[in-house]
Amino acid sequence: MKSARTPDRTELTELGQQLRVDAVRAADAAGSGHPTSSMSAADLAAVLLAGHLRYDFERPEHPANDRLILSKGHASPLLYAMYRAAGVVDDEELLTFRRHGSRLEGHPTPRLPWVDVATGSLGQGLPVGVGMALAGKHLDHLPYRVWVLCGDSELAEGSIWEAAEHAGDQHLDNLTLIVDVNRLGQRGPTRHQRDLAAYARRFRAFDWHTVEVDGHDVEAVDAAYREAAATARRPTAILAGTVKGKGVASVEDREGMHGKPLPDAEAAVTELGGPRFVRVDVTAPPAAHTPEPAPSGRPELPRYELGEKVATRTAYGQALAALGTARGDVVVLDGEVGDSTKAELFAKEHPERYFECYIAEQQMLAAAVGLAARGWIPYAATFAAFLTRAHDFLRMAAISRASLVVTGSHAGVAIGQDGPSQMGLEDLAMFRAVHGSTVLYPCDANQTARLVAATADGEGIRYLRTTRGDTPVLYGPDEEFPVGGAKVLRSSPHDKVTLVAAGVTVHEALVAADALEESGIPVRVIDLYSVKPVDERVLQEAAALTGCLVTVEDHRSQGGLGDAVAECFADGRPMPRLVRLAVENMPGSATPEEQLAEAAIDAASITATVRALYERVVTS
Amino acid sequence: MKSARTPDRTELTELGQQLRVDAVRAADAAGSGHPTSSMSAADLAAVLLAGHLRYDFERPEHPANDRLILSKGHASPLLYAMYRAAGVVDDEELLTFRRHGSRLEGHPTPRLPWVDVATGSLGQGLPVGVGMALAGKHLDHLPYRVWVLCGDSELAEGSIWEAAEHAGDQHLDNLTLIVDVNRLGQRGPTRHQRDLAAYARRFRAFDWHTVEVDGHDVEAVDAAYREAAATARRPTAILAGTVKGKGVASVEDREGMHGKPLPDAEAAVTELGGPRFVRVDVTAPPAAHTPEPAPSGRPELPRYELGEKVATRTAYGQALAALGTARGDVVVLDGEVGDSTKAELFAKEHPERYFECYIAEQQMLAAAVGLAARGWIPYAATFAAFLTRAHDFLRMAAISRASLVVTGSHAGVAIGQDGPSQMGLEDLAMFRAVHGSTVLYPCDANQTARLVAATADGEGIRYLRTTRGDTPVLYGPDEEFPVGGAKVLRSSPHDKVTLVAAGVTVHEALVAADALEESGIPVRVIDLYSVKPVDERVLQEAAALTGCLVTVEDHRSQGGLGDAVAECFADGRPMPRLVRLAVENMPGSATPEEQLAEAAIDAASITATVRALYERVVTS
Repeated sequence: MKSARTPDRTELTELGQQLRVDAVRAADAAGSGHPTSSMSAADLAAVLLAGHLRYDFERPEHPANDRLILSKGHASPLLYAMYRAAGVVDDEELLTFRRHGSRLEGHPTPRLPWVDVATGSLGQGLPVGVGMALAGKHLDHLPYRVWVLCGDSELAEGSIWEAAEHAGDQHLDNLTLIVDVNRLGQRGPTRHQRDLAAYARRFRAFDWHTVEVDGHDVEAVDAAYREAAATARRPTAILAGTVKGKGVASVEDREGMHGKPLPDAEAAVTELGGPRFVRVDVTAPPAAHTPEPAPSGRPELPRYELGEKVATRTAYGQALAALGTARGDVVVLDGEVGDSTKAELFAKEHPERYFECYIAEQQMLAAAVGLAARGWIPYAATFAAFLTRAHDFLRMAAISRASLVVTGSHAGVAIGQDGPSQMGLEDLAMFRAVHGSTVLYPCDANQTARLVAATADGEGIRYLRTTRGDTPVLYGPDEEFPVGGAKVLRSSPHDKVTLVAAGVTVHEALVAADALEESGIPVRVIDLYSVKPVDERVLQEAAALTGCLVTVEDHRSQGGLGDAVAECFADGRPMPRLVRLAVENMPGSATPEEQLAEAAIDAASITATVRALYERVVTS
Repeated sequence: MKSARTPDRTELTELGQQLRVDAVRAADAAGSGHPTSSMSAADLAAVLLAGHLRYDFERPEHPANDRLILSKGHASPLLYAMYRAAGVVDDEELLTFRRHGSRLEGHPTPRLPWVDVATGSLGQGLPVGVGMALAGKHLDHLPYRVWVLCGDSELAEGSIWEAAEHAGDQHLDNLTLIVDVNRLGQRGPTRHQRDLAAYARRFRAFDWHTVEVDGHDVEAVDAAYREAAATARRPTAILAGTVKGKGVASVEDREGMHGKPLPDAEAAVTELGGPRFVRVDVTAPPAAHTPEPAPSGRPELPRYELGEKVATRTAYGQALAALGTARGDVVVLDGEVGDSTKAELFAKEHPERYFECYIAEQQMLAAAVGLAARGWIPYAATFAAFLTRAHDFLRMAAISRASLVVTGSHAGVAIGQDGPSQMGLEDLAMFRAVHGSTVLYPCDANQTARLVAATADGEGIRYLRTTRGDTPVLYGPDEEFPVGGAKVLRSSPHDKVTLVAAGVTVHEALVAADALEESGIPVRVIDLYSVKPVDERVLQEAAALTGCLVTVEDHRSQGGLGDAVAECFADGRPMPRLVRLAVENMPGSATPEEQLAEAAIDAASITATVRALYERVVTS
């Protein structure tokens, strides 16, 4: 099928049937998967592939390629059938669906070069697509369209409406959402069943253009896509009424057929007209120069004087602004708290690369993933506490192999009066458990500035935790802080105990160390600014010498610094004695100093803990 | 002020000014807080308190009391000023705002008897209010109204639209949302600024009744509240145009005044007419009998035969249905996957206590919190992976002191072909770090049934992790499994190594133990079904005997079982050698058996690890 001309109804219908047949065959070969959810959207996919998508399958990196996101990732057999029709997946590979080692996973991931982002957690495709559409309009300045194919069930996710709001507000007319309204979710009927108008009304209220269409009428679908492309200043949502399991009478529109191979695949394939191979020459994107690489020099980082008191969040903002000057590929997102996270310092200098996401943390993270997929280096920030809102997006970003930096400010009880709702106390646990993540927690301004610059070059999700209040500068501006490193701030050959701290607790540990030194208990103090990966060598040396490690963290005792230290001895080697000081109480309002004392992570608590431990060891 | 009659314009205006004055004074005394966000909503609050709220402040437990949720929790000075006007907080206490030990925290928490749920993470008040309104209509059958006062910025949160959808669909005419549209967020103008119609359009599209009103015209506000109360079959959103900092010219409608005490509080109080004390006799709720306590017998739990193969998720559903028969206070929520989590087994027997939340995990958790606040015992379930979507709600639920049970099904790589997007691999880390949580991970059907019943009586957030595939029944139906316990499945006085497992890995550990026993390495096997709290005694005894512990978990190595075991030695005692086997790879699609092998948590990997460890210890 050549797409120099628009394919006719018969050709498109044939292609739709082929996609159904291949979806049925793939799921049958796998013994699992979602053929019925693929069949409802097959005509939508056929018209898109043969008539509208501009994509060079031989050059997935082509800068002007349209982007296609299968938000309803469980309909992966449909996507893989499209790849077969496009000639990049052969029949043999199609039938490896869901097998060990196959690229054709149960839900699409970027193991396939044509998949930008992993899907399978519903409600994420549209918000990520918004990020790509923002890139197309504001950064890449390229005419690619972003097509998102989603299901009707997933419109219940709030993240869809965060995205709808953002896209409408930003007039993203390069974004088209195709909703496969097949009436049936996993368990049964959706809330609105076949009421296309109910969905359309909602999108229009969010300033979208909408089209309601019979999703099995290929000419009507073709017209809808044209209408979307021709619509200026508004994103378009195409509400397509479809039938789940379309084409095979025994499963059409039937409950209880979600996520199962067809009972009789052979008969189904026959009913669908048998296997065929319509090969689609997908329209190539318009010629486009690969954009010039952005300037990428060494940033002139801010320099802070020893002893000066500066909040690490301020250093974050200042370093980020400097990084933005040196590197044109750095972009910044914030959740309407840029005056608190200090991302506003970047915004003031580089407004064209700053994305205000308002109080919509899921959309913020998803936009970062979309921007990263287009090659930009996103730095996204809000309060550490509110990053928990985007946990599922972080988890999926790791599966998407996204490369981005996330900053959580206002970490821990050290924020003071605002109370527990504003305190990030679970963020280290959350980020450490994200696959392939890096977790950094600086204690002073120069260290923060260096780490902000270092994270521009990493891989995966890099998390930077910052502090609300001012802390004294401990390190000179030329000190280096490699990711995976640690700093030994106090040491002698006579150290009896090792204190391991990060962020605010480093300062408490130093005060405690002075007090302990005076009373004849020399202690080693390690600033574990790199919480993941940790500097195993430094910790193991300290353990070998002192035999006792005390970790102190402004975080819950689960999954944070204490766990990071314990984990680096979890290879069967003899273990040091370990004590964890962490936030076990439920804080209320209080000054930062009162909070640290109440949580027993202040200098006095550290001192008392070390004394007790030392006496116990000496007398044991 | 007596509310036997409706207070007149002058009285209401006076009360509004008093609330402003008190908010200014409280924030001034604290040196922090949000007076300007309180001042915008002061007239809305005055009219509500004096004319519409039906609440017995002496009996916050009165079953027919209206519910008031301050979703914009940062405007706490306004709430506390209302409490002063209602006569339950005196002036002295008002001025303890944000001080250490004060009940008047920076953001409201249930330390105050009139606060049902903590707020301060925006966008949560409405979804929780939906839960309370559902309780009022479908469970309590009481005529209380639920009033939610929220800000305009927080309407950007997707959770608001999950709630709007749920409330519209369920015709919750006992729910009124009051939006304080004061134009300014924290950082600057909101997206829609003063465009009340933009918000109204959105709510109407979600099947709400809407009223647009000048939020400083007390008579118009009074009429809007009456209209809301008179509206049947639809929830009402009142979009109230207001001015941030209203009443003090120097801060009115000014950017940069968010979250700060007024620069000259004394002058501001004078401008507002000086301090006064209008005392409001809040209308009492209608007489209502405290509902009869629901039947609360011992459930007749399902009984499974030793060796039978049953998925723990199935046992969850069956036990829950039995629990629902024995206890009338148990209610169940599910995120449109009840056929997978098996919550549908409850739904079939007790449809009147089952809440389908569709694919909206934030709303599901929030509704559970709202139901719990009304005294019900909610069990909420979805795939473990998708609970990450509700992380912020779980965090806040702990601050709310909510008592509820959450179940995550399809845990770990053991799900097989569906791939990583569907695998809960971070859930143990997430739930363990929630303050006051309980984390349970059963390995067989009888254990699951017992734990389902046990969790009905706990406190805080109880998490139950279930498995997709069938696993053999290991325990008899009369075995008991106390929370905080562990089972020793293999032991001898000659054990060389201890294996600690939970869920699917228990079965792998038993196979490994048999192989190791045969090759002359007797090992102890502990089923750590209670991951938090852990049975420290059993672990410490095993450590004392064997000196080596190997943990095996179908979860990331951070924050899960390995951490739980390490943490119970973190009191400075001599440590055993520890090895963690956990999921370090990024899985693709594969069979459950292939997945376990690939992640190196299957019997063969355990066997090899124990052998290597044993040899290392023997030769060291």
